[in-house]
Amino acid sequence: MPSALPLSAALLSLLTAAPKAQAPVAAPKDPGPSPQVAAQLIGAALSEGRAYARLAELTDGIGPRLSGSEGEKAAVQWAKRSFEADGVKVWLEPVKVPRWVRGEESGRVLASERFREHPLALLALGGSVGTPAEGVTGEVLEVRSLEEVAGLGEKVKGKIVFFNHAMAEAADYGKYAGLRTRGASVAAKSGAVAVLVRSLATASLRSPHTGAMRYDEGVPQIPAAAVSVEDAELLHRLVAGGPVKVELKLGCQTQPDADSFNVVAEVKGREKPKEVVLLGAHLDSWDVGTGAHDDGAGVTMVMETARLLGKLKPAPRRTVRVVLFANEENGLRGGRAYAEAHAAELGTHVAALEMDSGGGRPLGVTFRAGPGGEELVRPWLQPLEALGAGVILAGEAGGADISPLIPARVPFVGVRVDSSRYFDVHHSHADTLDKVNPKDLAQSTAALAWVSYVLAEVPGVLPRPEAPPAAPPTTPKPAAP
Amino acid sequence: MPSALPLSAALLSLLTAAPKAQAPVAAPKDPGPSPQVAAQLIGAALSEGRAYARLAELTDGIGPRLSGSEGEKAAVQWAKRSFEADGVKVWLEPVKVPRWVRGEESGRVLASERFREHPLALLALGGSVGTPAEGVTGEVLEVRSLEEVAGLGEKVKGKIVFFNHAMAEAADYGKYAGLRTRGASVAAKSGAVAVLVRSLATASLRSPHTGAMRYDEGVPQIPAAAVSVEDAELLHRLVAGGPVKVELKLGCQTQPDADSFNVVAEVKGREKPKEVVLLGAHLDSWDVGTGAHDDGAGVTMVMETARLLGKLKPAPRRTVRVVLFANEENGLRGGRAYAEAHAAELGTHVAALEMDSGGGRPLGVTFRAGPGGEELVRPWLQPLEALGAGVILAGEAGGADISPLIPARVPFVGVRVDSSRYFDVHHSHADTLDKVNPKDLAQSTAALAWVSYVLAEVPGVLPRPEAPPAAPPTTPKPAAP
Repeated sequence: MPSALPLSAALLSLLTAAPKAQAPVAAPKDPGPSPQVAAQLIGAALSEGRAYARLAELTDGIGPRLSGSEGEKAAVQWAKRSFEADGVKVWLEPVKVPRWVRGEESGRVLASERFREHPLALLALGGSVGTPAEGVTGEVLEVRSLEEVAGLGEKVKGKIVFFNHAMAEAADYGKYAGLRTRGASVAAKSGAVAVLVRSLATASLRSPHTGAMRYDEGVPQIPAAAVSVEDAELLHRLVAGGPVKVELKLGCQTQPDADSFNVVAEVKGREKPKEVVLLGAHLDSWDVGTGAHDDGAGVTMVMETARLLGKLKPAPRRTVRVVLFANEENGLRGGRAYAEAHAAELGTHVAALEMDSGGGRPLGVTFRAGPGGEELVRPWLQPLEALGAGVILAGEAGGADISPLIPARVPFVGVRVDSSRYFDVHHSHADTLDKVNPKDLAQSTAALAWVSYVLAEVPGVLPRPEAPPAAPPTTPKPAAP
Repeated sequence: MPSALPLSAALLSLLTAAPKAQAPVAAPKDPGPSPQVAAQLIGAALSEGRAYARLAELTDGIGPRLSGSEGEKAAVQWAKRSFEADGVKVWLEPVKVPRWVRGEESGRVLASERFREHPLALLALGGSVGTPAEGVTGEVLEVRSLEEVAGLGEKVKGKIVFFNHAMAEAADYGKYAGLRTRGASVAAKSGAVAVLVRSLATASLRSPHTGAMRYDEGVPQIPAAAVSVEDAELLHRLVAGGPVKVELKLGCQTQPDADSFNVVAEVKGREKPKEVVLLGAHLDSWDVGTGAHDDGAGVTMVMETARLLGKLKPAPRRTVRVVLFANEENGLRGGRAYAEAHAAELGTHVAALEMDSGGGRPLGVTFRAGPGGEELVRPWLQPLEALGAGVILAGEAGGADISPLIPARVPFVGVRVDSSRYFDVHHSHADTLDKVNPKDLAQSTAALAWVSYVLAEVPGVLPRPEAPPAAPPTTPKPAAP
């Protein structure tokens, strides 16, 4: 929409659209991001991009990589080797991560006069305590919300509280994720013995979806598991007819913290090396599936962007730093460790961008910056139009791992991807390489590479957002876009 | 398409379309199926039909019902009680059924220099032998067809043969089911130690689909399992890069045959009680999921048809007999027992119809009869037009359980339902009640009730098809439509 642009922006937009005309006219001293670089980055990402090949190395070669696991260790070394092979400077920054280990697990609806026994397809939630070997048995108490439990008082005592709220679409994740993260403590406060949570899923073939939960201080720690959508529907039908008892056996446990690392790589800026554009993704995944969309796709997109930017001569004006965070899924220790270790330089972090919504096609760009920040980038979006992503979208940019940078008022930018089918497989056994479309991944990589370059090259910097009124969010996994 | 009809059929069609006009005109002596009955049956099936409620009793109340299991026994008693409650005459006919029992099972791709270990989502195929407790380990040999194995000669020896052919749509089931049923013996003839078969599935979220297999005489019996589509894709990618070893542990076993029953119910004909219209479905299911589409839907449709026809006064001209067959899934013993026990009366079986393609919406009617058989029924299809099923479709009617009636030249009729999504859940943990749409089930029940009534009431009978050239098919599960 050039008519809405200030004159200078409109001019720049015209220049971008007609690169050949740029040299002959009296060029401004600082023309900003070069359209030739757009062609180079987008062309390379689409024609010789390695994002999907990297993703195959990570998912088929290494597989799941829960914090503290052998898979995570292997992934850290793989990432370091890969950056080195690409000629990108890389180092490891230590992070202590929680070590939660899934064990044997099962659940069943106990037979009654009304029905025979049914097995439950479930996954313990990450961070849950285990049950005694003989399991936990209790009557099911179905609720829709945390508030409903609080209102039930004595009725909750001794029960297995079953949080049953369906996700209709991806955008619902944020609305109901609290049932998973906070349900156990809310229920335990009223005397529940365990909780079952309907999987946060937009598709199911009897597929449970795990995810993080946490216990409040001073409240009994009770076991918590996600059941498949089908089993949630079954429980709902059975409960409607009378009392239903469930037996739950979870062999999971939390072991001592383990040593891990944020993998940090960077392409040094040619003119303002201390100004940092941070590109984040998380290297850890759940222990089921292979974390292809979550967040292998993000990892490979930012790694690929580092490779492509690293080949530019001259280098971008500012430093582009890629951080593959540790422990996004069940602790956010990597994000916090980065913010702490780099506290002194956050004032010169001019932008942070996290890719953690899967490997779908690119849709556009989002912001969380001071007033008018979008106008710094808007003139440079034309090269993304043929990818369907040359627009600024409503909604704030963000990301769990970069959320600890909020108090330092680091501006956030987002390259939003189509995540409408992300929650079909998110945190489940089905988050595997075959779910990622190589074409979509390449196109989003191209969009990311260009936006990253723009942020590193544009003459000005984004205005910083206001300081937040309260502490940064501590939810391990905030709502996806 | 009335213009293509012979005059008498066109006249009948007109009468059917204008029921109010029928009484005043000089009625033919034998007007055939009454349009008022169409209204009564279709109206009842759609407004007070119990198909879905019955399906909930069968799937939620009883659950899986593999031959010889407690679930199967419970289902037989449930069906008998249900017919009795509906006032429909019912009896049990004994059938000895195979008793195959799944045990603990697992599979994994063993780690190599190229990749870390991967678990495999698998299900032993029904009828498979188990492995030794320590499992069977072998290098994976990927093939696309039975013929390819035969051509590989010595290369097969000691290998785990992996049959990898994707289903693109439901109609592909018939093309590739042979890999599942016959793959083990074909591979064993060349010295394979086990087989893995890509699940016959049109959707997957890491969902293995089981199904029957059988061993040829005189060939070593080797273990056989279905792997999920995702794991098939993984194996395919890994094998492309070099040798891949898999370990397979299956705890399944075949126990002595068990006592079971065909549940037979009938509505006696008012005028030609010895002429039988047989409506079949199978009461057994696999041991995973609850057999909602396969074949709970068919069971409840034929039970509901018996209830609705049983309330007609006067009763239909001919006898309508409902048979809930035992052991369709892994032996076809029920279908064979019926054909044997009723051999003397198969000459007066004027039609047989099996519902075993799920609970989708009705699409039309199919035949397997002598030349011109369709014309007997075509004039009576108008009442199904508003259900979208008032047409005769190409393709033969059939059904596994009624296939033993082929040598006796019993005409087959089919009420085809939409089974385009049937193989998303078929033989998997996900074949559960929530997958069946109550509206679709009611509409197919309505279509079935009317077609059944037409067959039982129409003045003439279908010409019998030619005798088959060879023996009847012995495949446990022929291709679905």
